Amino acid sequence: MVLLDGKKTSGDIKSEIAIVVSEMKKNNKKVPHLAAILVGTDGASMTYVGAKVKACKLVGFDSTLVDLPADTSEEILMAEIEKLNTNTDVDGFIVQLPLPKHIDEQKVLKAINPDKDVDGFHPTNVGRMSLDLPCFLPATPFGVLELLERYNIETSGKDVVVMGRSHIVGRPMSILMSQKRKAGDATVTLVHSRTKNLASYTKKADIIIVAIGISEFLKGDMVKEGVVIVDVGITRVPDATKKKGFRLAGDVEFASVAPKASFITPVPGGVGPMTIAMLLKNTLLASTRGQEK
Amino acid sequence: MVLLDGKKTSGDIKSEIAIVVSEMKKNNKKVPHLAAILVGTDGASMTYVGAKVKACKLVGFDSTLVDLPADTSEEILMAEIEKLNTNTDVDGFIVQLPLPKHIDEQKVLKAINPDKDVDGFHPTNVGRMSLDLPCFLPATPFGVLELLERYNIETSGKDVVVMGRSHIVGRPMSILMSQKRKAGDATVTLVHSRTKNLASYTKKADIIIVAIGISEFLKGDMVKEGVVIVDVGITRVPDATKKKGFRLAGDVEFASVAPKASFITPVPGGVGPMTIAMLLKNTLLASTRGQEK
Repeated sequence: MVLLDGKKTSGDIKSEIAIVVSEMKKNNKKVPHLAAILVGTDGASMTYVGAKVKACKLVGFDSTLVDLPADTSEEILMAEIEKLNTNTDVDGFIVQLPLPKHIDEQKVLKAINPDKDVDGFHPTNVGRMSLDLPCFLPATPFGVLELLERYNIETSGKDVVVMGRSHIVGRPMSILMSQKRKAGDATVTLVHSRTKNLASYTKKADIIIVAIGISEFLKGDMVKEGVVIVDVGITRVPDATKKKGFRLAGDVEFASVAPKASFITPVPGGVGPMTIAMLLKNTLLASTRGQEK
Repeated sequence: MVLLDGKKTSGDIKSEIAIVVSEMKKNNKKVPHLAAILVGTDGASMTYVGAKVKACKLVGFDSTLVDLPADTSEEILMAEIEKLNTNTDVDGFIVQLPLPKHIDEQKVLKAINPDKDVDGFHPTNVGRMSLDLPCFLPATPFGVLELLERYNIETSGKDVVVMGRSHIVGRPMSILMSQKRKAGDATVTLVHSRTKNLASYTKKADIIIVAIGISEFLKGDMVKEGVVIVDVGITRVPDATKKKGFRLAGDVEFASVAPKASFITPVPGGVGPMTIAMLLKNTLLASTRGQEK
């Protein structure tokens, strides 16, 4: 069993990006600039945005944090988005989700200029992804593809089961892996809460990508020997033996699944660290390809 | 075995639309208006566009045919599209494909106002479909959903195999049938040219939707008893016993598959007639919901 080490791989990617940026600086070129809008003081959101800003600094990007109070009106948020849309110094930006309940998330995501939408959530980017046109891939599925590629895991013609049909992970994952691409050309089955005989799908799968948000759901008796496991889930599970009173668990029961797997992502340290690396990669792309449409 | 009669069903849909239109007329409301751009004199394209214009007349829609010579420049075509984009009398329009080779198809499709894109080919519509937001569904997958719904075929939790990953049929079909919707909530596997052990997927499928463009590819020994078959293919097969020297065949070997099927579409008279009906339905939608965004 080999661990798919997302922490190490994301470090490699950041190093590669840092080299490109230092070349840009040498040549007196503008460096990539990522902006993030944060509305409110949700703890997890503040942590995520903080990590993104820190990652920008690490690779030499410019970064801007637009920090708005929780009671910001939709109108003011939309005005901030429009500023970033038209600010030619900003190559890409994100609006950290979730937003406060009084704000219409879809309306906000749609207001972002698709050419700066480095999260890849705008309908136009989603459509371009589905049509296999140049686009910004959503960071988590992009990170999974990159991890599979860098570990040279063969996917062509393989039986891939994607568990979970969310807009930001399961759905795009299922589309991408069945397209003609390096970590693609797979025969993909998308399973979800309505699927009957779930184990009949997972037991014959060569690769399983789990993104259902239920801790330790996939167990050893549901997979075959040699399976490749990518675990997108991350949940706090109460654990009295830990100082903090909890431990982090994925959607996969690692103890029973890992012994049967040929490759498996740990949680934490698997898919999670890849997400920020791919956001940086999208920002680099936004800055170098210009306003491709 | 029950035939999924697309000819009859499309007739029903057209009658329903005609009733809505006659109500509009009674109330002195503007009737839906579909425009079509045809470039060149390709025989099949002329037939298709002609059928669309005829269907408009049948249900009481206004229709406009913009008929351009084969050597029309991309620039002139784009100008015609812009005219239709801004013509407030036109609710929806299509550009008949394929286009002559000197014209960039993607560029053209992208120029269509997504709110008038009743073919549902614009990246923004494709993305909205994938995100399960209000959109124009592409006519062929939309027609398949409608056929399954009207025959009350249960899809929730069923094993559905979609054969073929084209942008206009297989891919959207696979997305739509795994979403939460009436003819949805299925466990969908998308199989294609790179799939290994194809029959292992088709043999256990409850519903198979075939859109690969290879005549009579799916045979009786590849399916289980009671399967539901939707055949999107239509090809001319040489046949000396026919006056015209050919017969029309689908992607399914009807003679061997039909006896095992619980429901099956004939070719012709199955999915084909549904496509135009759904184009009309999209146009009606465009005219009634206004410029929803």
